[in-house]
Amino acid sequence: MKTVDSTVLAASRAAPDWASSPARQRADLLAGLARALEEGREPLVKLAHDETGLGALRLSAELDRTAFQLRRFADEVTAGAAFSVIDDPAASGAPPAGHPHLHRVRVPVGPVAMFSASNFPFAFSVLGGDTASALAAGCPVVVKSHPGHTGLSREVHELALRVLRAQLLPAVLLGLVEGASPQIGQDLARHPAIRAVAFTGSLRAGLALQQVCRQRVDPIPFYGELGSINPVVVLPCAMLGREQAVATALAQSIALGTGQFCTSPGVIIAKRSDSLDLFVRLLEKALASQSLHPMLNEAIRTGFDAGCQRLGQRPRVAQILRGASAAANVPAAALFRTDAASFCSDPALREEVFGPEAIVVEARDDQDMLDAVRAIKGSLTATIWGADEDNQFHRALVRAASSVAGRVLFSGVPTGVAVSTAQHHGGPFPASTQPFSTSVGSRAIDRFLRPVVFQDPPDWLLSRGGLPV
Amino acid sequence: MKTVDSTVLAASRAAPDWASSPARQRADLLAGLARALEEGREPLVKLAHDETGLGALRLSAELDRTAFQLRRFADEVTAGAAFSVIDDPAASGAPPAGHPHLHRVRVPVGPVAMFSASNFPFAFSVLGGDTASALAAGCPVVVKSHPGHTGLSREVHELALRVLRAQLLPAVLLGLVEGASPQIGQDLARHPAIRAVAFTGSLRAGLALQQVCRQRVDPIPFYGELGSINPVVVLPCAMLGREQAVATALAQSIALGTGQFCTSPGVIIAKRSDSLDLFVRLLEKALASQSLHPMLNEAIRTGFDAGCQRLGQRPRVAQILRGASAAANVPAAALFRTDAASFCSDPALREEVFGPEAIVVEARDDQDMLDAVRAIKGSLTATIWGADEDNQFHRALVRAASSVAGRVLFSGVPTGVAVSTAQHHGGPFPASTQPFSTSVGSRAIDRFLRPVVFQDPPDWLLSRGGLPV
Repeated sequence: MKTVDSTVLAASRAAPDWASSPARQRADLLAGLARALEEGREPLVKLAHDETGLGALRLSAELDRTAFQLRRFADEVTAGAAFSVIDDPAASGAPPAGHPHLHRVRVPVGPVAMFSASNFPFAFSVLGGDTASALAAGCPVVVKSHPGHTGLSREVHELALRVLRAQLLPAVLLGLVEGASPQIGQDLARHPAIRAVAFTGSLRAGLALQQVCRQRVDPIPFYGELGSINPVVVLPCAMLGREQAVATALAQSIALGTGQFCTSPGVIIAKRSDSLDLFVRLLEKALASQSLHPMLNEAIRTGFDAGCQRLGQRPRVAQILRGASAAANVPAAALFRTDAASFCSDPALREEVFGPEAIVVEARDDQDMLDAVRAIKGSLTATIWGADEDNQFHRALVRAASSVAGRVLFSGVPTGVAVSTAQHHGGPFPASTQPFSTSVGSRAIDRFLRPVVFQDPPDWLLSRGGLPV
Repeated sequence: MKTVDSTVLAASRAAPDWASSPARQRADLLAGLARALEEGREPLVKLAHDETGLGALRLSAELDRTAFQLRRFADEVTAGAAFSVIDDPAASGAPPAGHPHLHRVRVPVGPVAMFSASNFPFAFSVLGGDTASALAAGCPVVVKSHPGHTGLSREVHELALRVLRAQLLPAVLLGLVEGASPQIGQDLARHPAIRAVAFTGSLRAGLALQQVCRQRVDPIPFYGELGSINPVVVLPCAMLGREQAVATALAQSIALGTGQFCTSPGVIIAKRSDSLDLFVRLLEKALASQSLHPMLNEAIRTGFDAGCQRLGQRPRVAQILRGASAAANVPAAALFRTDAASFCSDPALREEVFGPEAIVVEARDDQDMLDAVRAIKGSLTATIWGADEDNQFHRALVRAASSVAGRVLFSGVPTGVAVSTAQHHGGPFPASTQPFSTSVGSRAIDRFLRPVVFQDPPDWLLSRGGLPV
């Protein structure tokens, strides 16, 4: 096992050439990595399941998504728009109207430290979206593998090295460090040659790493995704007469992956009514009947129980469902209920409980609903069902949802994040530490490209087509 | 004088309507403010000179620049690209290829706190670039005026209120708070309704405000411009035979505004040679003959002397020029000389000295030059004269300059920042606390627009053309 220092130094030595590599070379690498993943599917999925217990079906789909993502960034590099050259020819005359020739490019930041997540052993790991977008941007990557899937991480890394070698590229473009101690990660984020950090994980670990990035002599960007509560607002017109369908859809989304998705819905806001009471009974039943698989690790399992217990003990919170665990490492889904006023006044009710859990928030009126949405800390998503009509209240609701979330859904459930051109996966803190950036979708590449403007650049620099030199 | 709290609350009540205001309304406001500034020129410039001593000629040109900037953002709003809608129609099929309809917009962050700078009483003050870009983005602004030009700030604010009233817009869209105590600024940055802070000023004050923004329950972006040393690399071919012209150009840029520009050149890197020795003698003479006006305030004056004294006492630093002050508040220009190895090993030589000062760094070879550039902390600009030819060394130099600066100049001096489409005024820390953003030029609006994606949005939302609701 190489040390953090030697791995980062090796990556940094490869950085200048990779920063000036032609688009074709980067696209070929990304496509080659995608193909290699697909070709290695069977043993990789098996190993991933052995380490995480997430199931072959889900893991195979996640591998597809990861390969798809690599190819998307190949397309992005080929299209070239991400490097967003703005050429602003000289304008004659005195300032402010007159100005020199300004040519704006975006240059790769340099080596990126990427921290794998426990819950996506392919898509947020060695060859996940952070790695793909950083390589596409022209940055070497040093991955800190997650202790929950060390074996898979090594296999995927070996596979990547084979692709790099086959394409005659330096193997050090993708480094791997591992270890369960927080020290390893902090050494990585503190290393002078590391120029940006991408992290998906817990609030506590994320804040510690953010602190390291900020306290450097040369602070670097920390792109952290640290938690999200994902409110779902069900308006009366979407609830009345559809209680069973709404309950089924939400129960499935809450229980998906045993609730271990960053976009798992944790808060359901609806108006007090007989329809709501019926819905809660149906949701309780639907949740109780979901089959859950073991959680990813002991810490998550313990954290889930502690979170549920804390919530259940708050005043004015009713525990609707808290079944017995089927096995020690398999939790029971949990459902709570409170009123909007309590939800707004008690911050503990708005903390994320990572796992198959949700709290129903009963609103007396429209204002209560707005207040409940606004009280939520930053979230990756907010869902509004039933806002088909244009009226003042719906506009206010969309505005409130937009102020707390990076993605506002009007149909479907928040779990499942499309890898697409327009996607934005990031919201106000703690959903993201950099809410203007996204960790999923084409614009994820922007995190690793810093604008630089060349004033009166020489012809040879321009002739390189805006690509960084 | 209204309190911080009442001013921010009033601005925040106007925020939703302004966020959904049509482009035409915003453009009209910005153009109206520009016109009003121009119409008020004579008394405003007089008042500005009385408070800052910067001279009528410069201040009138700065007013022109400020009006030009307001109109640029009017054009930017009208063009609409800043709101950067990406419409990504639904794709049929299973994920990852299939996905729902995703419609990406950018929503104004909400009320912005803007801290005026001492050295630009018009362009980085009440109606400066931060205010113009925030209003264009759809955000109300609360200005913290600079104690160095309180009277002018009040007059410009009154003028803005007249324009707002004439256009039947709420006067609270542009609030003003004042006071010399740091407490006022911290109260402003801490206020729950403030959603972003823009600041241009000293490292110390900026870091304190950044800390306030970070320690909030809901951290907000802090766009701070905190200092820049602006290296100028003069390659032998640009120096030899042109020593006098280079000395004159640099002396004028160093002494411009008594050195009180954020882009004032503070480091000159050149190769050891007879040509360099001649240049240093000519620069000393040219600097000594520049006429300097009083500095902006006592703190800047004291800081300049302390900085020069500190620098002069470092080992292996020769003091070339340090004349006597013409008057107590007028400094004498200063020039120092050192070698590249000392420059790289002693961080004190790379600290900004705000005022008419520069240090010449003598390089033995190309590697020395690269090392000196790379040793520089983040800077707004880096200038390279004489890199007309395409070769390995010039490429490495451009790469080094791009890694430490946001603007790389190949001709001209760094003072004077064009307000244009491609401009990037921001570099790695401490030049900017958010080096992916710019505080000058059209892209400054991006600081106040946060991406949000609507998934399967209803028709009424789409029909509003991507404008935030």
